[in-house]
Amino acid sequence: MADEVILLDAYASVFGMRVRVALAEKGIKYEYREEDLRNKSQLLLKMNPVHKKIPVLIHNGKPVCESLIIVHYIDEVWKDKAPLLPSDPYQRAQARFWADFIDKKLYDAIRKIWPAKGEEQEAGKKEFIEVLKVLEGELGGKPYFMGERFGFLDIALITFYSWFHACETLGNFNIEAESPKLISWAKRCLQKESVSKSLADPKKVYENLLEMEKRLGVE
Amino acid sequence: MADEVILLDAYASVFGMRVRVALAEKGIKYEYREEDLRNKSQLLLKMNPVHKKIPVLIHNGKPVCESLIIVHYIDEVWKDKAPLLPSDPYQRAQARFWADFIDKKLYDAIRKIWPAKGEEQEAGKKEFIEVLKVLEGELGGKPYFMGERFGFLDIALITFYSWFHACETLGNFNIEAESPKLISWAKRCLQKESVSKSLADPKKVYENLLEMEKRLGVE
Repeated sequence: MADEVILLDAYASVFGMRVRVALAEKGIKYEYREEDLRNKSQLLLKMNPVHKKIPVLIHNGKPVCESLIIVHYIDEVWKDKAPLLPSDPYQRAQARFWADFIDKKLYDAIRKIWPAKGEEQEAGKKEFIEVLKVLEGELGGKPYFMGERFGFLDIALITFYSWFHACETLGNFNIEAESPKLISWAKRCLQKESVSKSLADPKKVYENLLEMEKRLGVE
Repeated sequence: MADEVILLDAYASVFGMRVRVALAEKGIKYEYREEDLRNKSQLLLKMNPVHKKIPVLIHNGKPVCESLIIVHYIDEVWKDKAPLLPSDPYQRAQARFWADFIDKKLYDAIRKIWPAKGEEQEAGKKEFIEVLKVLEGELGGKPYFMGERFGFLDIALITFYSWFHACETLGNFNIEAESPKLISWAKRCLQKESVSKSLADPKKVYENLLEMEKRLGVE
């Protein structure tokens, strides 16, 4: 019996994009279902009753929630192709540590760049750049975060690239000037079809944010 | 060569206790080093420069940080004895999901019970009980969270039991009256030496909090 794989997702979500990249890396066919986050589907509420959030991967009727847990799951179920986590336990711990760092620090910093303004936005920019510099230090001279192979930690971070244009435009700064090596790494990742075809268009992400601002009446 | 295992920890930490239980389950000998969190050691700052937090497991000189990541690491390195994560990928995803839920929801709720007072404390109590009831629902009629075997998710939650007495006393409520099945599960876990010998004494946790209140001038 062929696997039935459904992804409940939202186009511009950095978390949803992670799952899309992982599925593409593994070459898994799936049905993509875009959720309207202002009017969530009954299926989403049923499949993720705890957090009621996308992404949710539904594999043969059973839901898996939370993006990094989904990427782990994908790597463990479809283990024969394109391993995402390193095989060495210490390297695995490092990959998990930095992915967790991204979730704890980078997302929060972005939320301070937008929809915040003024001083809070300035603090958000500073924090955002600091986090990128820490990650750049961790990358060092390696082509990918864990070495020669694109994998779990690259997936955890690369999806934020879709938001960089919006961050730069809204915050009036240049990320490449601050973290040139990280941008080189991002461009290297984007040469992979699994990444380029899964990531949201940076311009659309920015337009979406502007529309949302209008709707929310943020000035 | 024998493994050198050092744990930088703090007696009453729910996160540190997780690592102690995991090491005890695996029968790993290690050197325990209590950190003074008001005056952190140079070793802690060197081994966890990003978060500067305990617990840190130092295995043959290399640090692993963040409690759930450490428990994963322990399970992957010492894999022959007492497997902590289930072998089935879906069960593993479930164990990770609920452990993440505990970290996101339960700890926050406790921080609202103490050092908060008045309305915030009442809201914290309500939230805390709701979280426990969700976890109790997930436990169902099983002896342990993932079934017949004590494992990862049990470890992630049982350490909070050391704080229940303090929560009840400070918040003036009875957890067993609200979540009797969860307390039965906790008592079942405590029959295991790996748990009973690793957990902080609930009365000492409460006394520590009272001392801290005095020091901080909280009334």
